[in-house]
Amino acid sequence: MEIQPFLPLAEKFRAVFLDSYGVLKNYKGLIDGVQDTIAKLREKGIAIRILTNDASRSQEQQIASFAKQGLHGFETYEVITSGMMAKHFLQHKITEGKIAYLGTENSAHYILQSGLEHIAVKDVDLNNVKDISAFVFLDDEGFDWNTEINKTVNLLRRKNIPIIVANSDKLYPVSKNDVAVATGGIARLVESMLNKKFIHFGKPDTQMFTYSYNRLKQRLGPFTKKEILMVGDNLNTDILGGNKFGIKTTLVLSGNTSEENAQQQINASGIIPDFICRSIID
Amino acid sequence: MEIQPFLPLAEKFRAVFLDSYGVLKNYKGLIDGVQDTIAKLREKGIAIRILTNDASRSQEQQIASFAKQGLHGFETYEVITSGMMAKHFLQHKITEGKIAYLGTENSAHYILQSGLEHIAVKDVDLNNVKDISAFVFLDDEGFDWNTEINKTVNLLRRKNIPIIVANSDKLYPVSKNDVAVATGGIARLVESMLNKKFIHFGKPDTQMFTYSYNRLKQRLGPFTKKEILMVGDNLNTDILGGNKFGIKTTLVLSGNTSEENAQQQINASGIIPDFICRSIID
Amino acid sequence: MEIQPFLPLAEKFRAVFLDSYGVLKNYKGLIDGVQDTIAKLREKGIAIRILTNDASRSQEQQIASFAKQGLHGFETYEVITSGMMAKHFLQHKITEGKIAYLGTENSAHYILQSGLEHIAVKDVDLNNVKDISAFVFLDDEGFDWNTEINKTVNLLRRKNIPIIVANSDKLYPVSKNDVAVATGGIARLVESMLNKKFIHFGKPDTQMFTYSYNRLKQRLGPFTKKEILMVGDNLNTDILGGNKFGIKTTLVLSGNTSEENAQQQINASGIIPDFICRSIID
Amino acid sequence: MEIQPFLPLAEKFRAVFLDSYGVLKNYKGLIDGVQDTIAKLREKGIAIRILTNDASRSQEQQIASFAKQGLHGFETYEVITSGMMAKHFLQHKITEGKIAYLGTENSAHYILQSGLEHIAVKDVDLNNVKDISAFVFLDDEGFDWNTEINKTVNLLRRKNIPIIVANSDKLYPVSKNDVAVATGGIARLVESMLNKKFIHFGKPDTQMFTYSYNRLKQRLGPFTKKEILMVGDNLNTDILGGNKFGIKTTLVLSGNTSEENAQQQINASGIIPDFICRSIID
Repeated sequence: MEIQPFLPLAEKFRAVFLDSYGVLKNYKGLIDGVQDTIAKLREKGIAIRILTNDASRSQEQQIASFAKQGLHGFETYEVITSGMMAKHFLQHKITEGKIAYLGTENSAHYILQSGLEHIAVKDVDLNNVKDISAFVFLDDEGFDWNTEINKTVNLLRRKNIPIIVANSDKLYPVSKNDVAVATGGIARLVESMLNKKFIHFGKPDTQMFTYSYNRLKQRLGPFTKKEILMVGDNLNTDILGGNKFGIKTTLVLSGNTSEENAQQQINASGIIPDFICRSIID
Repeated sequence: MEIQPFLPLAEKFRAVFLDSYGVLKNYKGLIDGVQDTIAKLREKGIAIRILTNDASRSQEQQIASFAKQGLHGFETYEVITSGMMAKHFLQHKITEGKIAYLGTENSAHYILQSGLEHIAVKDVDLNNVKDISAFVFLDDEGFDWNTEINKTVNLLRRKNIPIIVANSDKLYPVSKNDVAVATGGIARLVESMLNKKFIHFGKPDTQMFTYSYNRLKQRLGPFTKKEILMVGDNLNTDILGGNKFGIKTTLVLSGNTSEENAQQQINASGIIPDFICRSIID
Repeated sequence: MEIQPFLPLAEKFRAVFLDSYGVLKNYKGLIDGVQDTIAKLREKGIAIRILTNDASRSQEQQIASFAKQGLHGFETYEVITSGMMAKHFLQHKITEGKIAYLGTENSAHYILQSGLEHIAVKDVDLNNVKDISAFVFLDDEGFDWNTEINKTVNLLRRKNIPIIVANSDKLYPVSKNDVAVATGGIARLVESMLNKKFIHFGKPDTQMFTYSYNRLKQRLGPFTKKEILMVGDNLNTDILGGNKFGIKTTLVLSGNTSEENAQQQINASGIIPDFICRSIID
Repeated sequence: MEIQPFLPLAEKFRAVFLDSYGVLKNYKGLIDGVQDTIAKLREKGIAIRILTNDASRSQEQQIASFAKQGLHGFETYEVITSGMMAKHFLQHKITEGKIAYLGTENSAHYILQSGLEHIAVKDVDLNNVKDISAFVFLDDEGFDWNTEINKTVNLLRRKNIPIIVANSDKLYPVSKNDVAVATGGIARLVESMLNKKFIHFGKPDTQMFTYSYNRLKQRLGPFTKKEILMVGDNLNTDILGGNKFGIKTTLVLSGNTSEENAQQQINASGIIPDFICRSIID
């Protein structure tokens, strides 16, 4: 397992796609020194895109959160979230009725603004579900797990509608050692109860990559996949997704995958990054 | 799909194994008329055993609950629960340390009485887990889902110990239309988070069948599997388990499987009951 | 379940994406009357694209096969195969070494023409695998199942390389009642042996949809997803893929899904087509 | 990870259950020195049982095979195979019709001798399947994979019958580095094609443990589970099965699990042996 420095590698590409958690920040906040790396990439004229499995915040809220932690200068078009993919899907496919959701009011506010009414699961009347036309798993917060998970199961048993998972991550880190069940974990529980497959958005699915690539070409003209480097800390989402989309991938060891077990996880999963770096600041 | 009356069928056997929910009772309580059927089986000298996936109550509490609803006369040895199987396992395999659990204090009280201390997840100190020697999923009640599921995930990430699911049912009915996520559903969520396989107890696993059959022989002398009929409402637990154990099976349509979709579910699952009855009172 | 005639529905769209098997042809060959439907769609100026999970033949060979059966006039750009997606992936990601494959020489010839050498599994020397840089499941024919499946497993145990499934279909129909295990079925067997996840191409993955949509815009100018209708006979590939990509979907009952069990399969899977037609000729 | 010598450990028990492959023999034949260990166990009066996932040979053929390799003195009652479990199941549950099978004539001869006719898949007439009453996966040999796997799929699509997997092992070793797809692997392929769950026999299922334990008590009088040690090289079958049955388990490093990756595999799987020995001769 050869570990190489990040910047000399990145400079061989015209664009880098960066995962957010584990690459730019960790459970303590921004990773010290990423501002420098970002600045150097910008100096070299390398296009930067952040591809994040997150459906709890809008692009603007993401940028504001980075800025608050000291990473300034991102533009809306540089941030691509799995929530945006879910939003596009809903706009194209769901044209009538109400969209029921599990998550915070904030996440519903910006993801479900498709001209349709939305309604939190807790406000749904199970005896009158005829105008519910879709269901979205948005966030692991904003509802009482003791009651709303069961209510979701029963709503989806009564009504056969498209079910969307706006962020399919199973868990997220909350401290050095600890994690929390994420939206995708709750969605999988409900899938298992109903014995159905929902429509999942987010890496490793290639939609965010395709979207980013198409927008890149619109903005910067001709661009080939060979000119793009995906950088992520997670084999199962970042690296698998980048590999499947057909671009070069770099695993960084500053997040979910540690230096001690990277090689073993690569061997076990069969998901092979093209490169490995300690982090984007090394 | 031929539906036949229950009693003439049962009379061809020396013992009947009955599932509890969907056979003896439903969401409204005891099914009207089962007292008669039970009395007739007893008159004919047919041995009765109740095999139930339940880890929330002791055999005595199960019997008391039946009696309270009007079904009297069951003896301790006639009730076999998945919780008993988990209890035997813990007694044989876990001989030191503390057993952590998710469930009610009552379920912990009677299942974990193996000479070892037990401790609810909410009382575990995650920074001091060295004397925790096993973990048991006991019940879907008795804890706050908002916090204790995540705490369970993190406990089990820190400590590599045997993890037992005392009732592997994914869900249970709470009304004509509605269900609730059961212990086994929560356990599956945590399994999916950790990417591990826990030790599951309860039908369709054959342990409860083996236990019941062995005890039957101890009490009544020589007995063959051909003389036993399993009766249940659930293809995936009762019928699959009975089939796998090698006894004849009867699907009843008074619970989880309705007359309308029984044949389709049989075809789709490949789990084939030997007989079908409307209920044990028909 | 409302069944509607196809042409009046299709005329509401500017493009139709058609699955091949079950829509244009079946086990007997071309479905009588599809020439008419295709001609009428062309008259109305509706763009037609065939999206097929097939990695055994080139676009030209697909077109020749349609022509031979009496369906003339298709152009190369109108046919999109999962094999093309695999080919693009290999061109972008695999830049050195030899590509080993399971399939026919013909499939290898046109899919693996990426400047790299390719080698059939039967010709691989398991004691000298160091220059094998990728593996592709191409076809269920062209090799001896008795020996080459095991050899594939052992090759992939020795060498940790990207593994591509060029057609992820599990089975294909060979007569009214019978099916055969397809490339994707064999790939799944090997995945299960190795406990790894391969890179699968073909519907329901959205890559073929994205590719077709992008090319459509290049050729015809601005186009929205709302103007495209996906037509297929298979809920799990055609309809799931179309739904996920965010376009309207029509299930036809002329192939894999019969009128008798369509509603039940929709309910069981939770994959909901926007429309249902008996076939494209009704 | 503490590794301890085998004999002093084994001497604390009244019975040892031994897996065959990886414990007594490996791809080269009998492991040098196991005769000594077996002799010493017998001297100490420790009961020995071989529990093997094998449905290709009878108990007598197993013993003859051991004797041929130099391990003499085993009695029929000391050998328990997954094929025996399948045979008992068939005797109890299938009382009419013909049993179709995939495997060698030899395996069919001794496993299917239940008074019923049996028929190899290759001899089945797919247009006349009405007297086929069950199907058994017996062996990975004795049939042409190119044709009989597809024929099996089609037979089982036409006829909804109990389907038994007499050995659920996915693969077996054929040399130091190489493996072959076993019966259970083929069965899983067909399961995946049909989307059904078959009835699997063999470890980790507890049936062989229960059978061995019951027979042990019949022969030797009172016996508790605490007095039995399971010894195996495979976490997913031997150790998981022994753990689930509630007896102490020893992982040996002379077969499927190597010293280098034992601890990692234990952590990853959550399957925890009570003890670890290098082999039964160390």
